[in-house]
Amino acid sequence: MNEFDFIRKIREQTRLRGASPDLLRGIGDDAAVFKSAPGSNLVITTDLLIEDIDFRHHTTMPGLLGHKALAVSLSDIAAMGARPRWAMLSLGLQAAIWDSGFADRFYEGFFGLADRYSVKLIGGDVSRAPERTVIDSLVIGECSPDRAVLRSGAKPGDQIYVTGFLGDATAGLRLLERGARLHGSREVLDPTLDDETSEVHPIDRLLLRQLKPEPRVGWGILLGDSQLATAMIDLSDGLSSDLNHLCTESNVGALIDASLIPIDPLVRDVCGRRALDPLMLALHGGEDFELLFTVDPQAAAKLPKRVDGVALTRIGEITTVSSGVQICEGSRVWNLEPGGWEHFKG
Amino acid sequence: MNEFDFIRKIREQTRLRGASPDLLRGIGDDAAVFKSAPGSNLVITTDLLIEDIDFRHHTTMPGLLGHKALAVSLSDIAAMGARPRWAMLSLGLQAAIWDSGFADRFYEGFFGLADRYSVKLIGGDVSRAPERTVIDSLVIGECSPDRAVLRSGAKPGDQIYVTGFLGDATAGLRLLERGARLHGSREVLDPTLDDETSEVHPIDRLLLRQLKPEPRVGWGILLGDSQLATAMIDLSDGLSSDLNHLCTESNVGALIDASLIPIDPLVRDVCGRRALDPLMLALHGGEDFELLFTVDPQAAAKLPKRVDGVALTRIGEITTVSSGVQICEGSRVWNLEPGGWEHFKG
Repeated sequence: MNEFDFIRKIREQTRLRGASPDLLRGIGDDAAVFKSAPGSNLVITTDLLIEDIDFRHHTTMPGLLGHKALAVSLSDIAAMGARPRWAMLSLGLQAAIWDSGFADRFYEGFFGLADRYSVKLIGGDVSRAPERTVIDSLVIGECSPDRAVLRSGAKPGDQIYVTGFLGDATAGLRLLERGARLHGSREVLDPTLDDETSEVHPIDRLLLRQLKPEPRVGWGILLGDSQLATAMIDLSDGLSSDLNHLCTESNVGALIDASLIPIDPLVRDVCGRRALDPLMLALHGGEDFELLFTVDPQAAAKLPKRVDGVALTRIGEITTVSSGVQICEGSRVWNLEPGGWEHFKG
Repeated sequence: MNEFDFIRKIREQTRLRGASPDLLRGIGDDAAVFKSAPGSNLVITTDLLIEDIDFRHHTTMPGLLGHKALAVSLSDIAAMGARPRWAMLSLGLQAAIWDSGFADRFYEGFFGLADRYSVKLIGGDVSRAPERTVIDSLVIGECSPDRAVLRSGAKPGDQIYVTGFLGDATAGLRLLERGARLHGSREVLDPTLDDETSEVHPIDRLLLRQLKPEPRVGWGILLGDSQLATAMIDLSDGLSSDLNHLCTESNVGALIDASLIPIDPLVRDVCGRRALDPLMLALHGGEDFELLFTVDPQAAAKLPKRVDGVALTRIGEITTVSSGVQICEGSRVWNLEPGGWEHFKG
């Protein structure tokens, strides 16, 4: 199949998913054409995934990669407090990967997640790549006028929260690096199952936190609509790096309490057997795609306990910029330097 | 410099270019936030450029590549009859390329073209790439409600036009493949100079048509605003492929006249000395980034002769779908099969 036939097939799949009155032209022209709700703001993000940097074919599956490519961009839209609407996908594939039917299963995983949030695929690009698979994912969301939650709104005294558990994705990555592989099961690839409630092998559960992250779309929409969050960021580089990003943009400091950081008991167990420090994974490990946000203490009581089954944990408080970004463990306090992922060292 | 410092630098460069009342948040958050003009339609396109497929470092320069990455997406927006507004850029770079200062010069070329059309860079991604440079460029444009010019509006009897000359970019590519290199001059990299009027070495002029294409932004805006074009596509794959795309979407046929196809005298000269057929380059060569569009014969007299110094040529007429897509050369008529670029053969 050449790429024009393939694009026709994907276009047909988007057509079968039904029309959207806001989408005037999807796949099949030089560009997609859509309109935003009157007065709304548009929120747009793009994420590049490169083979052997962001994933390895032998430790994942095409469907999981399709899910993850969309998930990382949905997470950015959630971190703005916006509702995801449209997606575009650029794929660069080696000829052998193309011939293997990779793209079909990749889009299956992609649509599995997209359909859950009624996100429409409206375009993209397909190219040959000489050696490494390349994926660029783009998502456009909408929010009410001036309701986007920026990184820059945190004030001293605001309480700091995170969704879910931290460090799982890096624990999963460490397991993959040490040779663990998915036990494989219907659940792994079936996008209609919810990983967090279905019966999945415990090690698979950690591997899937790395290979099939769940963006906190529901939390993002709630925090944007309610305007409860004063600032927000998603945890993609790692808590230490991302908290520093948020504090820099807000011109504030922060003090977090190590004992409050939510760590999955399974991660503690797995780490204990493998001489890994769960706190280090939670602080500096990336790709959890949980949300980190700040809330005025007066408003904190209005926060729901859970959204879509995902709990919330208060981990600290915003301080003045002169205090810097700090962490306490019992009576010891130290500076929390960004220790997360960097592509290029300075 | 690590990528966070680099992103800060690019963000500062966008800040220095001045605020836009429609841009609520550019670089520096999880996503960019903007609003569209009330009632307008949004037009979005993305293009993936991969080293050794779409370009080679040793035949181009970082600034030219920055220009071209944006140009290919601007061309898609022009082909929709829309006005470009916002851009995003994802870059995957090898460590050695990163260390060489490539990115600074790349963005210089990018901004040179972006500034010309007041296109604002509002986000993107930076990643390490193991072996090949990867660029994904995205542009968002705007047009008045329901004014986007689709591929699907051509009717039998409509006249077929192209802007500029065809085959230049492929002639330039053939020269590069045979070892020709830019003679290098101030003009080559200075984005404030107009290549088509400044004194550039004749061979450089063809090489630049490949390495530094000029999107027909002015023509695109005019044809969208005036609603003179019934259908439009940009010539990226090659006339034979792109005319077939347009005819498929419009469910029509076409008859073009080989003798009317505009070929640059310089291309004829260069081809003559190198046993290349200029008509084949014009028909099947890609990346000219000229516009191909159709016009109701009643409206054709309203077309301007030139926009931004770029002329128009009528090359044929839309026919019924049963006639297929054909070309005549004197009294001979044959089917014009798509012979342009394909990444993957069927």
